[in-house]
Amino acid sequence: MPDRQRADARRNYARILAVAEEEVAAHGSGASLEQIARTAGVGSATVRRHFPTRYALLEAVSRHRIEALCVRAHDLTGTGDSRTALLDWLSDVVAYCVAARGLAAALCYDAGSDPVHENACSAALAEAAAPLLRRAAQDGAVTAGVTVADLITLAVGIALATEHHPDPAAQADRLFRLAVAGLSPQS
Amino acid sequence: MPDRQRADARRNYARILAVAEEEVAAHGSGASLEQIARTAGVGSATVRRHFPTRYALLEAVSRHRIEALCVRAHDLTGTGDSRTALLDWLSDVVAYCVAARGLAAALCYDAGSDPVHENACSAALAEAAAPLLRRAAQDGAVTAGVTVADLITLAVGIALATEHHPDPAAQADRLFRLAVAGLSPQS
Repeated sequence: MPDRQRADARRNYARILAVAEEEVAAHGSGASLEQIARTAGVGSATVRRHFPTRYALLEAVSRHRIEALCVRAHDLTGTGDSRTALLDWLSDVVAYCVAARGLAAALCYDAGSDPVHENACSAALAEAAAPLLRRAAQDGAVTAGVTVADLITLAVGIALATEHHPDPAAQADRLFRLAVAGLSPQS
Repeated sequence: MPDRQRADARRNYARILAVAEEEVAAHGSGASLEQIARTAGVGSATVRRHFPTRYALLEAVSRHRIEALCVRAHDLTGTGDSRTALLDWLSDVVAYCVAARGLAAALCYDAGSDPVHENACSAALAEAAAPLLRRAAQDGAVTAGVTVADLITLAVGIALATEHHPDPAAQADRLFRLAVAGLSPQS
C-alpha cells in the first residue's frame, strides 16, 4: 500500500474510532454502525474493513478509553493532594463507565465474553492506578484493604445500576461520592 | 374446581415457587424450567399451567422475595440500634440481589422490560424501608440526603458488578460494607 493510502487509512481509522466513541456514549453498545459511517463521512465498507464486527469496534473503543484512563492515572500520580488525585481519577472512571453504558460490563468485566481482553483491561487499569492508590493509602486517606479492583468494580456496578436513570451521569456521580464518603460512616 | 383439587394446586404452586427460588439462586435467571419441574416432583405441564412463561415464573420469584424483604423491614423497624437495624436489612437486600443474579436488574430496575412491575417493586421496598431509614437518619447514623432508592441502587449495582466473581456473595457483601463505611471518609 503506498504511503498516502496508508496515511488515509490511519486517518479514517482514527476518525471512525472518535465518532464511534461519541455514538457509544450517546446510544450505548447498540450504537448504529451505519450512523457511525455517515457521521465519519466514510462508507459502510470502510467501517467494516477497519472493524469487521460490532464487537471489534466496541473493543477498540473500550481499549482506547482504557488507555486514556491509564495515561490520566500516570499524569495524576505525584500531583497535588493524594486523596484528590485518586478521587479525580475515579471520577473519570465512573464517567467512562457511564458513557460506555454497559461497554465495560460487556467487554471488560464479563468473564463470559472474552476473559483475555477482560484481564488485559483490568490489569492495565490496576497497574496504572496502583501508585495513585498506594500514595493515598500511605497518607491514610483510604480505608485499609481497599484495592483498585474494588474501586473499579464499584464504578462499574454504579454505572450499570443507574443506566436507566433519567440522568445517569449525575446519579452515578452522586452515588459514587456517597460510597466514597460512606453511606453510614462510623465516627 | 373441587376443594381438594384447589388445595393441591395451591400446594403445587408453593412448591414450584420454592424450588424456583433455589434454582434461580443457584443458576441465575436462566434456570432450567425442566429441572424445576423435576425437583418439585411435578410435570412440565403443571409448571406451565401455573407459570405460562419464564418471565411469569421469574416475576413470581422476584415478587415473593421482595415481599419477604418488606416483611423483614417491618420486623426490624423499632428493634435495637437504628443503624444496625438498617444495615441488617440492607445486608439482606444485597444477599437477595446476589442470589437473584441479575433478576433484580432484569425485572425491577430495567425500565425497558416492565416499568409497572419495576415501579411496584421499587415503591414497595421504598415504603417498607422508609421508617428504618428515617429512624437511622434521626439518630445521625446516615449521611444526609441518602434515600432508600440510593441504597437499593447501590445494592443492585454491586450485585451486578460482582456477578462473575468466584465468590459473588462474599465479594458483594465486602463491597457494600466498604460503601457503608466509606472508601475514603473524610474525618
